[in-house]
Amino acid sequence: MPVVVRNPPRAPRAVADAFAGYGVATVHEAQGRTGLLTPDISPIYAGARIAGTAVTVSVPPADNWMIHVAVEQCADGDVLVVAPTSFSDAGYFGELLATALNARGVRGLVIDAGCRDVAELTQMGFPVWSACVSATGTVKETLGSVNVPIVCAGQLVEPGDVIVADDDGVVVVPRLRASEVLEASQAREEREAGVRKRYAAGELSLDVSNMREALAAKGLRYVDGPDGDGGAAR
Amino acid sequence: MPVVVRNPPRAPRAVADAFAGYGVATVHEAQGRTGLLTPDISPIYAGARIAGTAVTVSVPPADNWMIHVAVEQCADGDVLVVAPTSFSDAGYFGELLATALNARGVRGLVIDAGCRDVAELTQMGFPVWSACVSATGTVKETLGSVNVPIVCAGQLVEPGDVIVADDDGVVVVPRLRASEVLEASQAREEREAGVRKRYAAGELSLDVSNMREALAAKGLRYVDGPDGDGGAAR
Amino acid sequence: MPVVVRNPPRAPRAVADAFAGYGVATVHEAQGRTGLLTPDISPIYAGARIAGTAVTVSVPPADNWMIHVAVEQCADGDVLVVAPTSFSDAGYFGELLATALNARGVRGLVIDAGCRDVAELTQMGFPVWSACVSATGTVKETLGSVNVPIVCAGQLVEPGDVIVADDDGVVVVPRLRASEVLEASQAREEREAGVRKRYAAGELSLDVSNMREALAAKGLRYVDGPDGDGGAAR
Amino acid sequence: MPVVVRNPPRAPRAVADAFAGYGVATVHEAQGRTGLLTPDISPIYAGARIAGTAVTVSVPPADNWMIHVAVEQCADGDVLVVAPTSFSDAGYFGELLATALNARGVRGLVIDAGCRDVAELTQMGFPVWSACVSATGTVKETLGSVNVPIVCAGQLVEPGDVIVADDDGVVVVPRLRASEVLEASQAREEREAGVRKRYAAGELSLDVSNMREALAAKGLRYVDGPDGDGGAAR
Amino acid sequence: MPVVVRNPPRAPRAVADAFAGYGVATVHEAQGRTGLLTPDISPIYAGARIAGTAVTVSVPPADNWMIHVAVEQCADGDVLVVAPTSFSDAGYFGELLATALNARGVRGLVIDAGCRDVAELTQMGFPVWSACVSATGTVKETLGSVNVPIVCAGQLVEPGDVIVADDDGVVVVPRLRASEVLEASQAREEREAGVRKRYAAGELSLDVSNMREALAAKGLRYVDGPDGDGGAAR
Amino acid sequence: MPVVVRNPPRAPRAVADAFAGYGVATVHEAQGRTGLLTPDISPIYAGARIAGTAVTVSVPPADNWMIHVAVEQCADGDVLVVAPTSFSDAGYFGELLATALNARGVRGLVIDAGCRDVAELTQMGFPVWSACVSATGTVKETLGSVNVPIVCAGQLVEPGDVIVADDDGVVVVPRLRASEVLEASQAREEREAGVRKRYAAGELSLDVSNMREALAAKGLRYVDGPDGDGGAAR
Repeated sequence: MPVVVRNPPRAPRAVADAFAGYGVATVHEAQGRTGLLTPDISPIYAGARIAGTAVTVSVPPADNWMIHVAVEQCADGDVLVVAPTSFSDAGYFGELLATALNARGVRGLVIDAGCRDVAELTQMGFPVWSACVSATGTVKETLGSVNVPIVCAGQLVEPGDVIVADDDGVVVVPRLRASEVLEASQAREEREAGVRKRYAAGELSLDVSNMREALAAKGLRYVDGPDGDGGAAR
Repeated sequence: MPVVVRNPPRAPRAVADAFAGYGVATVHEAQGRTGLLTPDISPIYAGARIAGTAVTVSVPPADNWMIHVAVEQCADGDVLVVAPTSFSDAGYFGELLATALNARGVRGLVIDAGCRDVAELTQMGFPVWSACVSATGTVKETLGSVNVPIVCAGQLVEPGDVIVADDDGVVVVPRLRASEVLEASQAREEREAGVRKRYAAGELSLDVSNMREALAAKGLRYVDGPDGDGGAAR
Repeated sequence: MPVVVRNPPRAPRAVADAFAGYGVATVHEAQGRTGLLTPDISPIYAGARIAGTAVTVSVPPADNWMIHVAVEQCADGDVLVVAPTSFSDAGYFGELLATALNARGVRGLVIDAGCRDVAELTQMGFPVWSACVSATGTVKETLGSVNVPIVCAGQLVEPGDVIVADDDGVVVVPRLRASEVLEASQAREEREAGVRKRYAAGELSLDVSNMREALAAKGLRYVDGPDGDGGAAR
Repeated sequence: MPVVVRNPPRAPRAVADAFAGYGVATVHEAQGRTGLLTPDISPIYAGARIAGTAVTVSVPPADNWMIHVAVEQCADGDVLVVAPTSFSDAGYFGELLATALNARGVRGLVIDAGCRDVAELTQMGFPVWSACVSATGTVKETLGSVNVPIVCAGQLVEPGDVIVADDDGVVVVPRLRASEVLEASQAREEREAGVRKRYAAGELSLDVSNMREALAAKGLRYVDGPDGDGGAAR
Repeated sequence: MPVVVRNPPRAPRAVADAFAGYGVATVHEAQGRTGLLTPDISPIYAGARIAGTAVTVSVPPADNWMIHVAVEQCADGDVLVVAPTSFSDAGYFGELLATALNARGVRGLVIDAGCRDVAELTQMGFPVWSACVSATGTVKETLGSVNVPIVCAGQLVEPGDVIVADDDGVVVVPRLRASEVLEASQAREEREAGVRKRYAAGELSLDVSNMREALAAKGLRYVDGPDGDGGAAR
Repeated sequence: MPVVVRNPPRAPRAVADAFAGYGVATVHEAQGRTGLLTPDISPIYAGARIAGTAVTVSVPPADNWMIHVAVEQCADGDVLVVAPTSFSDAGYFGELLATALNARGVRGLVIDAGCRDVAELTQMGFPVWSACVSATGTVKETLGSVNVPIVCAGQLVEPGDVIVADDDGVVVVPRLRASEVLEASQAREEREAGVRKRYAAGELSLDVSNMREALAAKGLRYVDGPDGDGGAAR
């Protein structure tokens, strides 16, 4: 049943692009704490933040043939999302494939397996979020599928979904919820800007968010330190 | 039994501060190879080194309410130390809480769980040592305790103990041993400076530390390479 | 049976040095996908690439005595390769030993255990590939061996073999195959340079490597996206 | 958006029940090597084999409230499938809940988290496949959902899908493919029975499956042992 | 500072013994969800349940000398609890030491490291809870301490504390709280007996524990399955 | 370079068989604490103990073709030892292959990857030591080698070496050292029989092995418990 789906519906480009203004943690909260890939997926270098529409690839263990097939299905603004059908720490992806994706305007790669050529990818500025770094090569013998729903690092990713990735990890936003989640992210960010200012001025969240009463109701007690000389001793 | 202990005794400020001049490896050796947190606690960015007095927080899995409570108990020169009561890879801490701690002069965070907003924390220069990076959020529903003894990453940490953290990890120095360990760290550092100079000049530790006799006594044999052409072949 | 083998045969210096011009991934492919250490061995800082001849050390768990013994056996252009006889996350190696190795022209260290003084080693520019970072110290009580065959991170390493290490990991090239693998690496690099240029110009690997026929023969199908509005919707 | 879906469509009972005659490995192969949960899900005791229709539960970390809610939605022949929204090693399930599920004819539990009361569950004969055994308790504070699609141990599970579990692990068969996969499992089992008889009689798979020609075509060489005394020496 | 503490205070024998009537999960809940060792400590064979007073041992990595020292400090009804000062998967303990402990009436061993001679220990019926099974041996070169407070698998254990262990794991009860926790365990067990009977009769926890109102207040919705043919289709 | 080596030299049958009388821990000690596979290789069921001569197989990730090839090279008294060239948790082996090996008198399988059909293998009494249990299937597309030196679970295994496996793990004895290690195992076993008898009679290893003086010389101190009521309180 290996299949390549051409031109799947994608979240609108302007919406997908706008997510790059928000961090993964913000987007994850804004869509009700769903869609976060497991934390063992991490960036190969620090400081990148991308958003784009998913082109999905289901690959056999230690076989990267379908990534070559997937390149042709990628368009400007896409993010490639790759999941092996069973665990593999092989290095599926390196700077040659990155060169090819770069030429098509792809924003980055998310892969629940290994990546190699880390030094070259860092120099090119092509960001990758992977399960590990591994120089192990792969073969080109068995088919897989492109642009079918996949489970990647614990989350269902469908082609055209929005992918947001930064130093904190990777989150997937379902295509049809993209606009709604974008607005919620923006709202959350604005709320936090106000809070940040108050915290910086020394206000406590206990007061900013009125937590004291709820804490007392749950039974929190305050007592003094064991010998009361806490301050003096310093 | 959730409780917040106010003003626990703390190691003297000058002593705690002085530890920042020594690395974690040095302090760990100086106190007899005790107090090191397990190596899965690592810094979110390279190059930070801090020392300060512990404010401890025991938190439920995936619930960061007590960290908000703990902020109020923090003073200039403290380090927040957080341990969940059972394993959690949730992201308990981000830049908003860091802003609040910063405003109180807190030096950094050590947490046996996840941290998020890594890019922002790096930019702020607020150092965190955590078990993982995770954008997963937390709830605010269940109480825990502040400034009680906790086990964090395999070590007992009591409020007011000295925490030293750098690229090598985190070590805890019991409050009442702080002065003694500080002196031992200084002594060790001085000894090592002399050794470093001799090594740099090409001397061998076998001679600097008189190891040859002990090695021979244990039975170490030296033999020549299999075909004797080792040098010539090059 | 602890033994130190002096002057084992080494791969020719010029050959070993020349490997530094190729990445680990390239060398690994060039020798038929063999010799790669497991991916849990990673560099303590990004950006280093070294090649040299192995001086091997078999050490007891949490005991670094034999590393001190091994320093004397190291020559300019060597790489130290250390494997404990059973798992240990102790920090066997720090900046003092690095100073000693530096003085003898050693290129770096590969160790299937822990390393410490990461900040200092980074500043010195002495590269280390290790299983973990750990400030845990070691003792000097039990003998091991130097320049005997060892298994390090899943690979057999014999003294005098070539070690290549970079951000992607570590690969070992058997001494007697070194020249042949060096040529194969060079050939591979040249082929890839041509491919890279074509990819950058937008050509697809499907065409550059004539994959379309083989894919069709294996049964790959192409279908259109579920609602055909993929492009329009954007 | 917490929701409980009542009476979702289920795979036909007779079909689901018939899967208990085939092992997980057979079913997995029969549906084209798809649907297998990751191997870290293992049975709490050896020797159980079950098949049934999935009632799915999405739970917060360390909170088992929704399992209590799910009991009411279970019917005779169901299998409960539970996935936390982020990693948790808490013990969500014990013999009290097993007693309740037993009373409704539930066949077993699959959970990507912890289970407790292993001795009691073993004695009752209520089989559980879990990520770990853990006596850690849970709270009842946050809602989740019942009978929504979930990702459990790397696989998408929809309510009403068929779950097959034995000592080898757990496989999910999509509801609408159940009859087809059942037939394929039966066909595979019959083929294997014939092969087993030939292997037991000493025939080689090289001959039974005509592999010799393909191996030669790929370039496999046969050589004699290094000193030819292999047989004699014995 | 290696020290052996003779005759530390122990929890009263009758109290410690009585804990064997309750499971680890029950005791853990009864003392407010504290004291549970991490779930990677598991029994070497199924079906054992023990309770006793802790004799604690702090050991160097891969060195079991202090276990030999500790045997002499053990009395009838004790449980040996061993923690290495840094991670070790060595096999510290086998049937010879078990024979010695058996002769003194020791109930079992809890060790945050490896154990060997599993077949023999199973046959003897000497129960061990360990982090792994490992035939790796240990040396006898470095001192440690007996009957000092240790951190074992994430929990502080003091000599004389009560240890309860079964198929679900291991829990420690502080010596001075032993009587109180025993009573709470008994009370919990009695409550659960009543609940078990109602569950077995088909009652739902939603009703037995009056959860419906709280669930509705939190916003739980019930909806019908997607096509309503759920029951019919079966 | 895929190759099958026919009739490699094997350790003498009588010697290999005699190892089945000794446990893995004993053999490991007797050969100087070398040759032990990492402890993550464990038996699929408890209670088996085997010894035999290794037929080695190097396999690609998730491809078991070469195991089919290896069957023909196996003789009565052999043990199959399989290592993938890079990590794979696929289930390479099940009851059909076990049936074929059984027909040739093979004693068991050691594999640094996954195994399936655990229930059937247990019933047949065909013992397997594997890195995991996994129903994941494999393909038959890429060649590997039979009877070449391999690294399996951290140890070098050469064809014809002796393999000993039991509940404690797996140890490899080099072919040419087999007789010598067998004698050392026997001597060790006899010594331990005498020690066991003395321990069972209540003697302490401190006295049996004269440890007290060495402990005192290293500086071990004995002190009385904190309040001296240790015995009385009980």
